[in-house]
Amino acid sequence: MTSPKQIQLSHGGGGEETNSLIHDLFYHYFSNDTLLAAEDAAVLEVKKKIAFTTDSFTVSPIFFNGGNIGKLAIAGTVNDLAMMGAKPLYLSASFMIEEGFSFDDLKTIVKAMAEELKHSGAKIVCGDTKVVPKGAVDKLFINTSGIGEIEKEGISANHLQEGDIIIVSGDVGRHGAAILMEREGLGISGDLKSDCATLWPAVQALIDANVSISAMRDATRGGLSAVLNEWAEQSAVCLEIKESNIPVDQAVQGICELFGFEAFDFANEGTFILSVPEKDAQMALAALHTVEVTKKATMIGQVSRKKEGRVILHSAYGSSRYLDLPKGELLPRIC
Amino acid sequence: MTSPKQIQLSHGGGGEETNSLIHDLFYHYFSNDTLLAAEDAAVLEVKKKIAFTTDSFTVSPIFFNGGNIGKLAIAGTVNDLAMMGAKPLYLSASFMIEEGFSFDDLKTIVKAMAEELKHSGAKIVCGDTKVVPKGAVDKLFINTSGIGEIEKEGISANHLQEGDIIIVSGDVGRHGAAILMEREGLGISGDLKSDCATLWPAVQALIDANVSISAMRDATRGGLSAVLNEWAEQSAVCLEIKESNIPVDQAVQGICELFGFEAFDFANEGTFILSVPEKDAQMALAALHTVEVTKKATMIGQVSRKKEGRVILHSAYGSSRYLDLPKGELLPRIC
Repeated sequence: MTSPKQIQLSHGGGGEETNSLIHDLFYHYFSNDTLLAAEDAAVLEVKKKIAFTTDSFTVSPIFFNGGNIGKLAIAGTVNDLAMMGAKPLYLSASFMIEEGFSFDDLKTIVKAMAEELKHSGAKIVCGDTKVVPKGAVDKLFINTSGIGEIEKEGISANHLQEGDIIIVSGDVGRHGAAILMEREGLGISGDLKSDCATLWPAVQALIDANVSISAMRDATRGGLSAVLNEWAEQSAVCLEIKESNIPVDQAVQGICELFGFEAFDFANEGTFILSVPEKDAQMALAALHTVEVTKKATMIGQVSRKKEGRVILHSAYGSSRYLDLPKGELLPRIC
Repeated sequence: MTSPKQIQLSHGGGGEETNSLIHDLFYHYFSNDTLLAAEDAAVLEVKKKIAFTTDSFTVSPIFFNGGNIGKLAIAGTVNDLAMMGAKPLYLSASFMIEEGFSFDDLKTIVKAMAEELKHSGAKIVCGDTKVVPKGAVDKLFINTSGIGEIEKEGISANHLQEGDIIIVSGDVGRHGAAILMEREGLGISGDLKSDCATLWPAVQALIDANVSISAMRDATRGGLSAVLNEWAEQSAVCLEIKESNIPVDQAVQGICELFGFEAFDFANEGTFILSVPEKDAQMALAALHTVEVTKKATMIGQVSRKKEGRVILHSAYGSSRYLDLPKGELLPRIC
């Protein structure tokens, strides 16, 4: 038996209880005219080319230092749009809820979503709720898909050019480390917080400053290593990175050493990598430094032709090695 | 331990194994230029107003008579777009997979998705894959979100007019009954198949015939009862339905009587309800009868002012009763 303060199967049945959950919770916090029209699909008008993306969030635990699954579900999808130079406008939200899930926790998560939406101005215009029997899902999964209008065209993982400067918007690995710490019960009172944040304001600052952007990508699953390797391969270039220039928080470094992980492979949820022509690099940094979330943005390397399709890490001592795509069992359920 | 023929956690880690799953399976079957660009978001150009919708599919069992979770995930989202008079164009696909899930089953499902896409011509342009540890999800959930261009404006649950004729596109309750039969182990060799199907060709026939459409909705969760009640409430009208005109298959009726369910409350996944001005009713039926999936479309009632916000069922014997919104624990995981 589930109490009235828990989500029940009938909340997902499509009948009276589903209606009341939708009206009292989702419509209340996500309120806007398109959503309230309650049609099979939202009707929208767009004026430019659009970007379209999807992400399902299965993070465990659902609450962590620096955010929760709801904040992450908004920031994650908004960031995927922002990385294409698109202003995030319209989001869908689909909840897959385990029978017996706390109604109060769901409310906290929905409120965090509404709060995070403010950082980009995007709106949730359509949604879906499924409730599955106990054991069929671990607590809560959320899918968000999003549509944005492209403000700056031509940003692409295929567009890196020789001579481009590689910039990282902040220190890397914090989301992965925060989740690992939480999961291992290392205490949530530490300073180590997930970097989970909406990146649209930083991208808008770059666009407003008229920075030429070759490529841009948030370093989520697979971390910095995955983005750099995908770029090297897709643009058939070599990325030469100064290892000592990559910012890593001491707490993140500590966690990594403890568990045998590599900070460069760890997921971020509010940190992105940027490739810009050398002439625009200082301008890009100046723009990023005007925004709180990216105020520590820094240059980490440059695009060359030394070894096409590979990422080379240069150590402070003059040695160098390849940085490979992460392989094997990384942390599951990081996002 | 999982075998190579099973999905492993590393397939969702964002590293090398994820890349190979995406390339060998998803890109292979869903292949199109936008998807293969492999950016953070798909870049699309649309010319008209768009419809945007989302749905997560958690159906159990994932294979059933008449379809599987993949076919359903395509038909369901495409149908939500079609119901708004929108031609389905672009879909996202997000897979949440349990560690150890059979690679062959995933392939069968992905192939069914690719096959079902042909009925509307829509393309999968972006996606996401999460693999969660054993027990964190029951086998497989799929979210699909979709974008369509609106070919016919003004279709809305708020637009039913007095005198409108209510049409149902086929017999009701087959999807719900097929899932229930499967789950109770009543054998899959029977004639009772889910109605799971793409409805865009039927909608296109209506648009081509220039039928005025007040409202249109596929009768999924909550079945015919939910759609009719939502319409009565949203348009503040009375729907008077001739009970004997509602087509119900004998096998569906039998299952309902056996388990104490009501066929009108049962989910459909390829059957829709239509409200059209009386003058266009015959034209609508003629158009629907040209399409295989809706060749049994029939009139079931009319919109009046008798009792605003309510649905009245008139029996063949002259008595009448209210048809209410389904309430309580309906069948979970029907879609």
